[in-house]
Amino acid sequence: MRLSQFHLGTVKEVPADAEIVSHQLMIRSGMIRKLASGLYTWSPLGLRVLRKVEHIVREEMNRAGAIEMLMPSVQPRELWEETGRWQKFGGQLLKIKDRKEQEFCYGPTHEEVVTDFARNELKSYKQLPINFYQIQTKFRDEIRPRFGVMRAREFLMKDAYSFHLTQESLAQTYEVMYQAYARIFTRLGLTFRAVQADTGAIGGNASHEFQVIAESGEDLLAYSDQSDYAANMEKAEAVAPAIGRPAPSASLQRVDTPRVRTVDDVTRHFGVTADRILKTVLVRGNEGLVALCLRGDHDINEVKASKLPELPDESVLASEEEILAAIGARPGFIGPVGLPDTIPVIVDRSAAVLADFICGGNANDTHYTGANWERDARITRVEDIRQVVVGDPAPDGHGTLQIARGIEVGHVFQLGSKYAEALNATVLDDQGKKQVMLMGCYGIGVSRIVAAAIEQRHDDVGIIWPEAMAPWRAAVCVINPKNSPEVSAAAESLYNELTARGIETVLDDRGLRPGAMFADMELIGIPHRVVVSERGLAAGTLEYRARTDAESSSITRDELFEILG
Amino acid sequence: MRLSQFHLGTVKEVPADAEIVSHQLMIRSGMIRKLASGLYTWSPLGLRVLRKVEHIVREEMNRAGAIEMLMPSVQPRELWEETGRWQKFGGQLLKIKDRKEQEFCYGPTHEEVVTDFARNELKSYKQLPINFYQIQTKFRDEIRPRFGVMRAREFLMKDAYSFHLTQESLAQTYEVMYQAYARIFTRLGLTFRAVQADTGAIGGNASHEFQVIAESGEDLLAYSDQSDYAANMEKAEAVAPAIGRPAPSASLQRVDTPRVRTVDDVTRHFGVTADRILKTVLVRGNEGLVALCLRGDHDINEVKASKLPELPDESVLASEEEILAAIGARPGFIGPVGLPDTIPVIVDRSAAVLADFICGGNANDTHYTGANWERDARITRVEDIRQVVVGDPAPDGHGTLQIARGIEVGHVFQLGSKYAEALNATVLDDQGKKQVMLMGCYGIGVSRIVAAAIEQRHDDVGIIWPEAMAPWRAAVCVINPKNSPEVSAAAESLYNELTARGIETVLDDRGLRPGAMFADMELIGIPHRVVVSERGLAAGTLEYRARTDAESSSITRDELFEILG
Repeated sequence: MRLSQFHLGTVKEVPADAEIVSHQLMIRSGMIRKLASGLYTWSPLGLRVLRKVEHIVREEMNRAGAIEMLMPSVQPRELWEETGRWQKFGGQLLKIKDRKEQEFCYGPTHEEVVTDFARNELKSYKQLPINFYQIQTKFRDEIRPRFGVMRAREFLMKDAYSFHLTQESLAQTYEVMYQAYARIFTRLGLTFRAVQADTGAIGGNASHEFQVIAESGEDLLAYSDQSDYAANMEKAEAVAPAIGRPAPSASLQRVDTPRVRTVDDVTRHFGVTADRILKTVLVRGNEGLVALCLRGDHDINEVKASKLPELPDESVLASEEEILAAIGARPGFIGPVGLPDTIPVIVDRSAAVLADFICGGNANDTHYTGANWERDARITRVEDIRQVVVGDPAPDGHGTLQIARGIEVGHVFQLGSKYAEALNATVLDDQGKKQVMLMGCYGIGVSRIVAAAIEQRHDDVGIIWPEAMAPWRAAVCVINPKNSPEVSAAAESLYNELTARGIETVLDDRGLRPGAMFADMELIGIPHRVVVSERGLAAGTLEYRARTDAESSSITRDELFEILG
Repeated sequence: MRLSQFHLGTVKEVPADAEIVSHQLMIRSGMIRKLASGLYTWSPLGLRVLRKVEHIVREEMNRAGAIEMLMPSVQPRELWEETGRWQKFGGQLLKIKDRKEQEFCYGPTHEEVVTDFARNELKSYKQLPINFYQIQTKFRDEIRPRFGVMRAREFLMKDAYSFHLTQESLAQTYEVMYQAYARIFTRLGLTFRAVQADTGAIGGNASHEFQVIAESGEDLLAYSDQSDYAANMEKAEAVAPAIGRPAPSASLQRVDTPRVRTVDDVTRHFGVTADRILKTVLVRGNEGLVALCLRGDHDINEVKASKLPELPDESVLASEEEILAAIGARPGFIGPVGLPDTIPVIVDRSAAVLADFICGGNANDTHYTGANWERDARITRVEDIRQVVVGDPAPDGHGTLQIARGIEVGHVFQLGSKYAEALNATVLDDQGKKQVMLMGCYGIGVSRIVAAAIEQRHDDVGIIWPEAMAPWRAAVCVINPKNSPEVSAAAESLYNELTARGIETVLDDRGLRPGAMFADMELIGIPHRVVVSERGLAAGTLEYRARTDAESSSITRDELFEILG
């Protein structure tokens, strides 16, 4: 592509609403332009990158045996009523009335439509397993669209849905999709982790998120430094300590501790580290209060807690009044010693191996020291209810956990029979009996990947594209083309040769001064840059600089071809 | 592709709402499935065809120097208010309110959005001309969606918009787009005509429609049998007869003609052909009645009439009461002889050369014979106001006109400054002065092309794809694969060889009986079919049949490769 015949709209100003670096760089490089809140136009430059991602996703989906189709973006209310999601989906569902007052939505996802397609098209187990996918525009009416295309309202998604007779078949396709996703993100050149994810309210059996690692990521994930283990923080298991609980060696003492309420207060007051302290949190359970006990240096994992049979799906801390009424002490002075029998005491695995610990005295301004489980305090059950921390042993037994931030760009999910049941999507099995199909669903945020890649790969002057995502792999910059026909001809010849070799190249023939030209190429993140100048021509060399190089170097044409493969 | 790993959903039943053959065949072949009124899912088979069209359109747009981008489908009301189209566009505009009660529409077209993009991005005449395009999903809330994807509500469109400083530049890009469109439809293998189209209420200077010729087409078009001339019927010029008006030879006579009202009545009554009769139509003009005079065998062209300065944009016939009040005679007995002076008499070119003609007597139950212009009747102006008919001379002087039906699949349009003016899209010219840009727009109905191709190319048993649009060019059908490992292996080998040669091939390895397999391949329109059977293996031949062949023939592998190039 000759840049003089393209539209490159780099700008200096960044709008105030561009809070994160990918949003800023996509605006500055001119990749996107805002049309309205959460609605972005992809400029020619931006679209080149988006299409690269789309192409790799499509290739790997096809390779994995998925079959592409295309469903409408506008979907009738009736189908969403069948699954109950017309109401349940919430405010993100953009509802539409047509000229005949019929109700539709702009599809945020396609479980309903694809399951309707499948119930009409699939009649026999012989047609299974089958995996349909599409790459298509979706809409979610985010209450606060932000971060550019990272959380836009209209976005490009690859969504796949597989149909099965048996759980084994579902698990098999799930694994195939998992491997396809790993290939996709590897080919894209991104650092990523496949993390175990919580299956949440949607139910289902297994779920992994594919996270692009980036400091600005909204998700926290835990991963092993010595194995493939990785999990969303919500899901990451805190294994039981390898060593058991020591025998008590101290006697229980009640100590006056006026104004010593927080864990920090307690460590200072007693001169101990937080891992010697037991903290007790009272929450509203399904039948009265429940006590959750953790080490002072640990935090509750609310997703894990919500799965305790004693607690509702969304647990709430007990109020100060409730606690005063039940225990006679304020929060900060609660502990397991002498708690009323009606309150279950759920103890975290790490807290359960403490001995001679300090805990609240269940009376204002008092604590116990030398407390011990069983001897002094009752344990209803030991559970994993805490957030993992850096240095925890990995649950697979290999290495210790590290914590990183990530951006979710993909999600694979074993849905089970949820949608097929609601929509009565059945096939006949080999006995001629109707069976509700099992389903998997597999999403990739195609447009979000573009932003996530920039979050992961950028520096002070611009984007650093991995080769597979770059709008062009190489840029040929011409110095003063108008002043020197030789320079101009040499640049043209180099551009033609690179293009003939199948290397996607952009010729910067706009006639800008070198500084402006180089700044643009760095901003838009072209991996390889060569400069054709009079001086270079005289010396028979080209000035080459990889986007990641600190300085340029003089190389020959042949050396350039070697670098670009 | 192995058909056993694909989803082919051919069916026997055709829904009652499938009125035209393309709709019926797309349902029967399983290419599309209806989700709701005017909303269709493209099955894997259908999508393969749609993508072929999309691919050719994209290649030719790129070759023609257009630059691809991607605009949102959801567009804010504010922009549409700037051009006045929020109201004017009418019921086809699908209006949407988001969760914050902001108003949007699902874009039926993108003039507003692209002009907004251009006014922000384009600052200088040096950036012009530029031609942006996208291939994107659009929505038009048709009051009566029908004919499957031919007139669906959600559809795939290629829309391009060019920006210019001068009319010459616009005309140049228009010509480039015209040629690109001609290449696109030629490559697709369709019989088409580029016809001059009326520019309608939208204004602008030039417009061509690209029509795929098909008997079921909704549009009538006139074309020369000896040149490239073609025009929409609305626009096709009826040239003035080469011979002038003969001198009067008969005298004017008033004749009693009770109950002789229609042209047919008059021809029977007087024993003359309709081309000897003058018919006079009174319409409501801007200032009172206007008389339009045509030959008895000709029809008014309403679009041409609407352009007369005496008539409003949508002219309406005068009512019987109005005519009685003004003339004192009923419709059917009106003629130019002795019409009140206040009524302009607009005479069609062909009617203006009549002599000694028959016309209404302006009194009930009377006609004139031997009437002549000037001597007996006043002519205000001679104009082209009729529909062309088969056999009219072509306006370019080459050949005579034929009339065919067509399906509009593309439209190129010189918009001029309409949108740029409304949205104040200006650039600085070489004098540093602000100039409103000129625009062209160029649309192709990508999904509609698929249906139009079927309307043009089908027979009793199914679709006859042109090679460029076929889901696969060749089908390898295996007879009894389970009974004969040799047959199965030979088919696999042939399939692999064809695929390796770059010939898109489908292997029908479903194990159906031959009749059902052949019927499917004919229904879905595969251009080349080969059968691998035990008998053929023994003879060293393949049974080959082109979709357009009446019978199969026995050929060798090498002969097959030759046929498939």
